[in-house]
Amino acid sequence: MPFSYTLQALDTGTAARAGRFTTAHGDVQTPAFMPVGTVGSVKTLTPDELKGAGCDILLGNTYHLYLRPGVETVSKLGGLHRFMGWDGAILTDSGGFQVMSLNELNKVREEGVEFRSHLDGSKHLLNPEIAMQIQDGLGTDIAMSFDQLVELPAPIEKIREAVDRTLRWAKRGLEERERLRGEGRGAMALFGINQGGTEASERARCFATLGAMPFDGFALGGLWVGEGRKLGLEMVERDCGDFPADKPRYLMGVGHPIDVVEAIARGVDMMDCVLPTRNARRGTVFVSTGRLVVRNAAYARDERPLDPACDCWTCRRFSRAYLRHLFVSGELLGMRLASIHAVHQLRALVRDARMAILEGRYAAFRAAFLEKFHSGETLAKAGA
Amino acid sequence: MPFSYTLQALDTGTAARAGRFTTAHGDVQTPAFMPVGTVGSVKTLTPDELKGAGCDILLGNTYHLYLRPGVETVSKLGGLHRFMGWDGAILTDSGGFQVMSLNELNKVREEGVEFRSHLDGSKHLLNPEIAMQIQDGLGTDIAMSFDQLVELPAPIEKIREAVDRTLRWAKRGLEERERLRGEGRGAMALFGINQGGTEASERARCFATLGAMPFDGFALGGLWVGEGRKLGLEMVERDCGDFPADKPRYLMGVGHPIDVVEAIARGVDMMDCVLPTRNARRGTVFVSTGRLVVRNAAYARDERPLDPACDCWTCRRFSRAYLRHLFVSGELLGMRLASIHAVHQLRALVRDARMAILEGRYAAFRAAFLEKFHSGETLAKAGA
Repeated sequence: MPFSYTLQALDTGTAARAGRFTTAHGDVQTPAFMPVGTVGSVKTLTPDELKGAGCDILLGNTYHLYLRPGVETVSKLGGLHRFMGWDGAILTDSGGFQVMSLNELNKVREEGVEFRSHLDGSKHLLNPEIAMQIQDGLGTDIAMSFDQLVELPAPIEKIREAVDRTLRWAKRGLEERERLRGEGRGAMALFGINQGGTEASERARCFATLGAMPFDGFALGGLWVGEGRKLGLEMVERDCGDFPADKPRYLMGVGHPIDVVEAIARGVDMMDCVLPTRNARRGTVFVSTGRLVVRNAAYARDERPLDPACDCWTCRRFSRAYLRHLFVSGELLGMRLASIHAVHQLRALVRDARMAILEGRYAAFRAAFLEKFHSGETLAKAGA
Repeated sequence: MPFSYTLQALDTGTAARAGRFTTAHGDVQTPAFMPVGTVGSVKTLTPDELKGAGCDILLGNTYHLYLRPGVETVSKLGGLHRFMGWDGAILTDSGGFQVMSLNELNKVREEGVEFRSHLDGSKHLLNPEIAMQIQDGLGTDIAMSFDQLVELPAPIEKIREAVDRTLRWAKRGLEERERLRGEGRGAMALFGINQGGTEASERARCFATLGAMPFDGFALGGLWVGEGRKLGLEMVERDCGDFPADKPRYLMGVGHPIDVVEAIARGVDMMDCVLPTRNARRGTVFVSTGRLVVRNAAYARDERPLDPACDCWTCRRFSRAYLRHLFVSGELLGMRLASIHAVHQLRALVRDARMAILEGRYAAFRAAFLEKFHSGETLAKAGA
């Protein structure tokens, strides 16, 4: 099996870790941030631009790709990597989050989740076995276990039920991968997802069973769904305390720079989020000194790049004035240039974090990052 | 003055010409096709992608840039080249076409055209002097004379009046450039525009005066506005017969591959059109064998590039199936990849045309191009 994880360094002042894992599509250095390529493209960007930003892994959404263009089409065209022209690693989610969050008409049963397509209303079933088959058909490097989410807040019984079902589904997914491997398929790594919402005892109970299963890595599920940074980070600290040191840890749905830095400090290795690129398309980017609203009139004649401290292609080539003009004029190039910066900014952040961990100075790195991020230097005073 | 044109070769079997002109931003080889960067970007594309497609010149729209971000802003930021990160040549139109076609409330007087902004309804005046000042402020390499258009069909008296006014305005524009040069500005080249609609005698009468004015090049105005290819090409042949051999000839608003090839055969050196990139953003591209509608279901699993005969970045990297998926899914990357192909396709066409002219075989080149273009090979039978 091609997947293997190596823990390379533990920070001395925090729980931050630096590592590396190997996939059939190259090595991935951790901490890693994965841009999200929902339907087979990281919106507005080419594979070359992602490489140029230093990305070695991205995320694809099983739910969307299953519905369109369909796993058979992707498979016939050589798999997701070839289809979208990306030769780095790919992690796919299980589709569970989407069928439960994008579909009001879903029916969750022990067998799986029956749902209607948001595209044409057609009926579909997703369950632990089908989620494995789809992810295998897409040719992913890392598949995710099909889990059950609970919308928070929820009574403890609901959370408990979802944990129990998540554990039963986790087992079914592993068995399905074994079955696929018996047929010469299923080469992908498979990560289990810990659940339990913000109930520390339920997360502990979930992982007591999940952690004994032969997953290649573990994810922190059900967080960053509205519980707030403080509580979320408490759960991260709790889970990472339980998770084994020799497997990668993936915090799902996190992409705000402060969250990224804080999660890394607690031992997280991988994160993904649509936030940076979605914000960028809407004209807001994170820079080293905070949040920049590109349309702000204060930037109309500002010759500086989005972030004078950034070395991304956009910041090396274009002024805030030009980007503002593109956004104000509705030019798609603005979305592109902002997206390039957004991906680069997070990629540079985890790269610098990794360096700090390797050199045992992550606490100082975090403090300096946060101080600068809160400074607002070079930014206009008020958002547009 | 930096502008100079060199006629390099005359085809032996047609009136096609190959040449070169020099600007402060590099040489431009002719025949040339100019992609249109209306508001400071060729929609969806970066300057690097335009260079990658072999472009050495593009067109900017004076009307749009004047209204937003405004000539003072562009000027303060170092001119249009620096503002948009393009170091090749730029030709700007005079704004006359836009004030007369985008504005129903315009008032055309001898002094100039009073119009209301399509953005905010504010009142503005554009005239030969102001058009020169704006184009100079943008830092263009080639400015266009401010002319008067007539919507066709029109009575002959209307056309005659417009020709007379166009000639008076042409003189005023040249005088304004002289005045600017007296102030150390106005370094740009200036092209006159021949008018007269599809009235051969009026076009001849217009050029009898215009051709004696010290313009750096001449444009064919008022064509490709609905008169049809046959009549349009007759006017092209007529005008090119009058135009001097030692100055470049620019046919405005032409970008269909067949028109491009036919206009070159009649002695045109430069063309521009939004059509190829606008079509591309809507999912239709010209390929060497005709017109390809990317969304066509027949391409859902087609592993071939848009045009197997094309060496653009898109065709080297992505399948029709992927592009179709991007368009069907509304992914902006689809517009980008199709636009890259569209610009490259026209750029490759004029490059190949130029080579054929230099080798004295343009008639054969044209015949082979048209035969292949009409073949429909590799294309699905029906449009989507």
